[in-house]
Amino acid sequence: MTLDMKAGVSGEQIRPDRLAEALERLKETVGPSGWSTHPGLLEPHVVDWTGVMRGSSPLLLKPARTEEVATIVSICREYGLKIVPQGGNTSLVGGAVPSGKGVEILVNLARMNKVRAVDTINDTMTVDAGCLLASIQAEAEKNERLFPLRLASEGNCQIGGNLASNAGGSNVLRYGNTRDLVLGLEVVLADGRIWNGMRGLRKDNMGYDLKQLFIGSEGTLGIITGAVLKLFARPASVATAVCAVPSVKAALDLLALCKQRTGGQVTAFELMPGTGLELVLKHFPACRLPLERLCEWQVLIEFSSSDETASQQERMTAVLAEAYEAGLVSDAVVSASLSQSRSFWALREGLAEADMMEGPTIQGDIAVPISSIPDFLEICSAAISQAVKGARIIAFGHLGDGNIHFGIIQPADVLPKDFLARSDEIHGIINHNTLRFGGTVSAEHGLGTLKAGAVLKYRGEVEQDLMLAIKHSLDPSGMMNPGKVLEAGRRQLQE
Amino acid sequence: MTLDMKAGVSGEQIRPDRLAEALERLKETVGPSGWSTHPGLLEPHVVDWTGVMRGSSPLLLKPARTEEVATIVSICREYGLKIVPQGGNTSLVGGAVPSGKGVEILVNLARMNKVRAVDTINDTMTVDAGCLLASIQAEAEKNERLFPLRLASEGNCQIGGNLASNAGGSNVLRYGNTRDLVLGLEVVLADGRIWNGMRGLRKDNMGYDLKQLFIGSEGTLGIITGAVLKLFARPASVATAVCAVPSVKAALDLLALCKQRTGGQVTAFELMPGTGLELVLKHFPACRLPLERLCEWQVLIEFSSSDETASQQERMTAVLAEAYEAGLVSDAVVSASLSQSRSFWALREGLAEADMMEGPTIQGDIAVPISSIPDFLEICSAAISQAVKGARIIAFGHLGDGNIHFGIIQPADVLPKDFLARSDEIHGIINHNTLRFGGTVSAEHGLGTLKAGAVLKYRGEVEQDLMLAIKHSLDPSGMMNPGKVLEAGRRQLQE
Repeated sequence: MTLDMKAGVSGEQIRPDRLAEALERLKETVGPSGWSTHPGLLEPHVVDWTGVMRGSSPLLLKPARTEEVATIVSICREYGLKIVPQGGNTSLVGGAVPSGKGVEILVNLARMNKVRAVDTINDTMTVDAGCLLASIQAEAEKNERLFPLRLASEGNCQIGGNLASNAGGSNVLRYGNTRDLVLGLEVVLADGRIWNGMRGLRKDNMGYDLKQLFIGSEGTLGIITGAVLKLFARPASVATAVCAVPSVKAALDLLALCKQRTGGQVTAFELMPGTGLELVLKHFPACRLPLERLCEWQVLIEFSSSDETASQQERMTAVLAEAYEAGLVSDAVVSASLSQSRSFWALREGLAEADMMEGPTIQGDIAVPISSIPDFLEICSAAISQAVKGARIIAFGHLGDGNIHFGIIQPADVLPKDFLARSDEIHGIINHNTLRFGGTVSAEHGLGTLKAGAVLKYRGEVEQDLMLAIKHSLDPSGMMNPGKVLEAGRRQLQE
Repeated sequence: MTLDMKAGVSGEQIRPDRLAEALERLKETVGPSGWSTHPGLLEPHVVDWTGVMRGSSPLLLKPARTEEVATIVSICREYGLKIVPQGGNTSLVGGAVPSGKGVEILVNLARMNKVRAVDTINDTMTVDAGCLLASIQAEAEKNERLFPLRLASEGNCQIGGNLASNAGGSNVLRYGNTRDLVLGLEVVLADGRIWNGMRGLRKDNMGYDLKQLFIGSEGTLGIITGAVLKLFARPASVATAVCAVPSVKAALDLLALCKQRTGGQVTAFELMPGTGLELVLKHFPACRLPLERLCEWQVLIEFSSSDETASQQERMTAVLAEAYEAGLVSDAVVSASLSQSRSFWALREGLAEADMMEGPTIQGDIAVPISSIPDFLEICSAAISQAVKGARIIAFGHLGDGNIHFGIIQPADVLPKDFLARSDEIHGIINHNTLRFGGTVSAEHGLGTLKAGAVLKYRGEVEQDLMLAIKHSLDPSGMMNPGKVLEAGRRQLQE
């Protein structure tokens, strides 16, 4: 078997008259309100949320139905055009912007935003892929249920994008990643056919679990157009705490104790360094520290339960008292109200932005086994400090998932451009140390454009070949979201 | 793209001297204690647990290391031999027996039975695929953790087989299927290479999630040789109840109430029909009914929590009192001791065997959306009763997962052979009604040999093509577990 991978962005030319004909047919497919070629209207769709990754496209399509998506794919295929599927364009890794190196048609699913059905006995919600995450959360709430995916971008991101990137977020510890929140999918394949896998089953061993292929593949294998999502009992009692901990190791022991005492009802367990919280307090004057003073490490903990008869505040206070006795916590405040809980979360959520307000920041979205976090933080921080004199390291994130956002702020005495010029070197140090501990260089954001070379650089040949074989198998012409996930075309599969 | 599928069992011949040479090299690979050709020793490996499916093999191999498995695959590939990977051979669908139609080498992983590592901070256990499920449960217990997969065959089945078949069982409601219990895999591919995906990460979006392909593929894409499993906090308090419910609909409302009141800590919710429990009491005289009298429907419920300070008995008693007031329960007994809890489970676990002791039984392992269970049971039972006069229907199982074991016992006035001759027709009625409700004809047992035609019969062309494309992509010569899952070779993929 020799697979000639053409999955990358090719420079193939299409004759101008053929292109014009194709664009005309695409416009007809979606009707007058479903397309745009106006540069101003295209602007937010060809640039990544971060503003760093920019491409171009001759046409933005906004189909209203799955069948229109299927026709679009068929037409693009017929004319040799490529497709960039797009949700809210909030991946932060350029997963949904065109490269501009070829003729890439943007297919944005914003108009496919219907909740198709809610079943509160099966605890499922069936949705179009273009539904905003926030709308889905609200619809679940309206039905006295919880859809637990929780992201900073929830007001802008679409569930199709969440599924395509297997988004993580703040509730993974309790409810899992997006992959764990879905029972069925509808996908338009690269050959233009529609796969209807919209089954709301909690057990289904009838052949290969095809939906798993599309979840996390970032639109490179097909376009997700619908999903059957899991719903959960709505939390009736929630408690949030901010605690100072003597060390990261102590934080891990505290996590184990919380898991034990709550029977797994820890919703969040977030690491916050003192250096980072200092910047939050500096740049967000409305933020208040609930503790007497900042220590090197703090954690934000959340317990929740759908049982309204059990107070999570009481439970959390008891667990933290036990932790204090055991020396795992040096100070702690449990929220007394919802607004206080929100103010605790504001500290955590301000960390990424405060870093960037302080100066240009280079950040890795990595994960290692939870047990390796203390060593990883120590060794990686030392390596960065040695390489970048005066670097301010802000490592924070989802400790309970092993997911650390490892950020380095520009040293005060270095010019921003000189610091950013070392971006590859600094990412290299973070990545090298992540992999030493059996980790991943993309924990929750995906690979997109930004890290499209990571698999070929950091994973072994066998793993690369498996991924390329799947890509080739489902998208042999490489038309789906070219250049993302795999920098295909650089190697050939040979047997 | 035209894929010439050769995934089925082919009748290709291999020259006797070439075969002898291949067998010699295979024996050398595993050494004197790693192989057998003795018919008596091969017997339990070529017959399915049910005794129904029987095949043949010239050689049983028991490799001791992953590298030996890789060499075996390479040699088989070189000589055109096929491979049947085998764990405990307890799939009940003939997933691990050779067909005997070609030269199929049995590769049993029983000697690869080491626990490689336990990490109680990362809450992971790294194991060889040949570890018995019961050994893994015991090792978790030794480390004050829980590995929650719970199956009737746990003393005989191997974790590799559980993973290959994505086994379900009694704890799925709380902890998910086997797929949900694994973080990393090691797989020997059909080209003889080893894929090392043994990462213990809870978030990893670095490309396609390859392990998902092998989980549930029943050995048709590669041989799972190792896994990183998730561990959980060990339950400190458990409560079990048997309840009479006025209807299946009431049972579903009771399930929703239990989920709400426990914050999702319902470990089991099992449906038991009065007709079935009558047979259990008849054939297992040691079993006792804890209720005053049998009703048409009973449920067995289990709550558990790792929090030793909260009594699950108290919690369950309160929930059942509330349910009684709401008319969801007509009678209920909560276990007062572990031994009483075991006696409740004996009723549930006796159901399948009691059916078979009563007479030849035809049983479907199906799942439908939970909300469809009442209608499914009513309509499917009526259809069966109409087709098979005097049929005794025993429908029981994992109500909380939508998974019903729909059994029909031979009518008293029909000869066993005449009843069993209608097996295809009866399965057809069950399957037809299952699919009407958006269900699956294999919920937790997989397809194996028994249901290898189901995908081609019951799923649409797009889904079939996707599965065949993946099979072709990862096992182009069709050497891995031929004839299982997909009755490949019957169709050709054409584009």
